[in-house]
Amino acid sequence: MNKALLIVAHGSRKEESNSEIFELAKNIASKANSFDMVEACFLEIAKPSIPEGIKACVSNKASEILIMPYFLAAGRHVLEDIPSIVDEEKVKYSDISIKSLPYFGSNPVIVDILNTLAENDA
Amino acid sequence: MNKALLIVAHGSRKEESNSEIFELAKNIASKANSFDMVEACFLEIAKPSIPEGIKACVSNKASEILIMPYFLAAGRHVLEDIPSIVDEEKVKYSDISIKSLPYFGSNPVIVDILNTLAENDA
Repeated sequence: MNKALLIVAHGSRKEESNSEIFELAKNIASKANSFDMVEACFLEIAKPSIPEGIKACVSNKASEILIMPYFLAAGRHVLEDIPSIVDEEKVKYSDISIKSLPYFGSNPVIVDILNTLAENDA
Repeated sequence: MNKALLIVAHGSRKEESNSEIFELAKNIASKANSFDMVEACFLEIAKPSIPEGIKACVSNKASEILIMPYFLAAGRHVLEDIPSIVDEEKVKYSDISIKSLPYFGSNPVIVDILNTLAENDA
């Protein structure tokens, strides 16, 4: 069983911004115990796209792909665009388990992090 | 000394998405020790705008405003758009301290949170 974590970020025209996401995936990979690979991809503007990200996981022999929408709020991208693309890909890979996690910003721990960050500089 | 924390989010066409940000500000306010007020505003699409958010803090007698760009990656919005708007506002309120925090996603703790979230569902 090969498990993949696939981070889906928005994508930016700034190459440094996209590099941040690859760096993040690399850092998670260095800590992750439950994943055999951690990949990054982008909803728009940057490459790899979501279909390309899923394909990369499959090429690396992933049998399970967990998708993490790396977004802060449940706007159109989180509610419609990403699920629609992921659903299309699921059809292509019917022998692979592709599941989506709740988007990053939905996590309640964020209130505490933001509070700590702000208090540190207050 | 009245301290304000002003969360700056992107803004969405989905009203629920913008409500999330107001809710976040309210939740931070309930935990924050160092701030007399916690407000939310949006770079684009939604209201209040950044100038309106700053004005609201000033109307509430803030003498110090700490701005938290609630973004995950350092794209154009974080590097250019927000600083440019904030710089214009600083000129209007020369008697008030307006400082920007590093954008949310720059915080190293994010790697651990993402890892924990993903591991929990792995």
